[in-house]
Amino acid sequence: MAVTVVGSVAFDALETPFGKRDKILGGAATHFSVAASFFTDVRVVGVVGDDFGDDEFAVFRSRGINVDDVERVAGGRSFFWRGRYEDDMTVAHTIETQLNVFEHFQPKLSDETRSCDLLFLANIQPDLQRGVREQCNSPKLVGLDSMNLWIDIARESLEQTIRVVDVVVLNDAEVRMFTQEPNLSRAAKRILALGPRALLVKQGPYGACLYTEDSFFSIPAYPLETVFDPTGAGDAFAGGFFGLLDSLETSEFTERDLRAATVCGSVMASFIVEDFGNERLQRLTEDEIGERFREFQQMTVFETPAAAALRS
Amino acid sequence: MAVTVVGSVAFDALETPFGKRDKILGGAATHFSVAASFFTDVRVVGVVGDDFGDDEFAVFRSRGINVDDVERVAGGRSFFWRGRYEDDMTVAHTIETQLNVFEHFQPKLSDETRSCDLLFLANIQPDLQRGVREQCNSPKLVGLDSMNLWIDIARESLEQTIRVVDVVVLNDAEVRMFTQEPNLSRAAKRILALGPRALLVKQGPYGACLYTEDSFFSIPAYPLETVFDPTGAGDAFAGGFFGLLDSLETSEFTERDLRAATVCGSVMASFIVEDFGNERLQRLTEDEIGERFREFQQMTVFETPAAAALRS
Repeated sequence: MAVTVVGSVAFDALETPFGKRDKILGGAATHFSVAASFFTDVRVVGVVGDDFGDDEFAVFRSRGINVDDVERVAGGRSFFWRGRYEDDMTVAHTIETQLNVFEHFQPKLSDETRSCDLLFLANIQPDLQRGVREQCNSPKLVGLDSMNLWIDIARESLEQTIRVVDVVVLNDAEVRMFTQEPNLSRAAKRILALGPRALLVKQGPYGACLYTEDSFFSIPAYPLETVFDPTGAGDAFAGGFFGLLDSLETSEFTERDLRAATVCGSVMASFIVEDFGNERLQRLTEDEIGERFREFQQMTVFETPAAAALRS
Repeated sequence: MAVTVVGSVAFDALETPFGKRDKILGGAATHFSVAASFFTDVRVVGVVGDDFGDDEFAVFRSRGINVDDVERVAGGRSFFWRGRYEDDMTVAHTIETQLNVFEHFQPKLSDETRSCDLLFLANIQPDLQRGVREQCNSPKLVGLDSMNLWIDIARESLEQTIRVVDVVVLNDAEVRMFTQEPNLSRAAKRILALGPRALLVKQGPYGACLYTEDSFFSIPAYPLETVFDPTGAGDAFAGGFFGLLDSLETSEFTERDLRAATVCGSVMASFIVEDFGNERLQRLTEDEIGERFREFQQMTVFETPAAAALRS
């Protein structure tokens, strides 16, 4: 029982209406793995420079995350992103991106990592994602995330990668952009027609929804009064989703499992945005996770009223 | 047991990616009343010109809607709106607005209408809304809708009207604009602080949510592959909401009632957008309403998985 995630491990500099941080732990694989670690064993495949030290590795190790496949390039510098959020916290303004060692990232998976049960291909170049997929022996479930950049410059490759995964995780703008279809239900059908059995659509402050061939499920976002820093929300969402699924020790992944996992993803996303980077997840407890899961139930439950028009 | 609605009764000319109509029955009070008529008795207060004939009145009468308080101005012309929707169906482009007899609309309520149980003030000038509120004897529940125009040019008056109603129905852009607060949860708190016991936020393709002092409820939009014409979705939503509540013959309106009503609103909104104007509602059956209500349940239900992190 283990989930492997391949993606960026990085430093971020962030500014939001609520404060700033000059250099904090970031990257999609980081946020995914910390979120997933509350549910199952996690192995990270990534690359960092020698500016990535014991303090950073300690964050992973304190959560029991295996970092044996995080390559450390001597003399190199880690991926660095500087961003700013203004009042509309749904839009990240990129001020600076330094790919550094990430520019030539060639994911290398150890034997243990290849034997993972679940594999998540975080947002990296889609050829690389496919290469990782091929390195894995026989994962029970493979997911991917992507971004507008790859839809723009590597659409064909992304489509090929989508064809070999089970779960696609994208935000609604990416779903529309990839399919060139403004209606989300039609767009979802087109993505599922490529092969995946599930599409998770992240909708920021509106929550998330899960499309499968014959079902639709939707969960709102947790109604936070302060979104401190939205960075990593999508990665924590995916981490909660795949982490929960892996913990179920099934290989069937029923609709019921996928829905529960979608809610776990939303729970983890709702926590990570409560503080900078993954600072909130670093002090999160299982009690808090359980309580918020129950709050999601309370936010969405309703009963059939005794109305004539509904009696039929 | 009756709900009174005050608002526009009009003709619309519409163009969407799926077709066009030169002159169809429109107006907020029209869409509200037809939607509500599936649940309870409805009385409409409005004004039309003598271009509004038997065919138009027949639509109301066929649904048992009382139109005694729809004033017909001899020699006048009815309110007319010409609009267009492009691929992004969430944005209505106004091509032409002729207020006509609606410009000097002074709602006059008959004794029967004043004695309604529930009152809905559809989107009209907020001073007029307050005037209608004062004409009513002792309604059990009063709701209002509004729009960006009134927030822009009559904000103070709108605030006064919000102070004397129980349920505010706005879309999320209007909630943010009225409160000048980008975070929806904080914005909702500010509106509830003015007095209303509930705020319904319409979120178009993302569904709707219900804020009360100590609870939050959210329901997705029905995942339609074709939104034929979104005109009137918000009015049908309000009609389903207040129609259901009136049918419950309670004066308490518990959280459970408000939630069921929010879902009924979403059901009616999901139907009206399936065809031009309210053509879909005119051929709608109670069986279809009941079935879609159950589909909303299926779209939102999930169970707690057997995960260690959630056992606490």
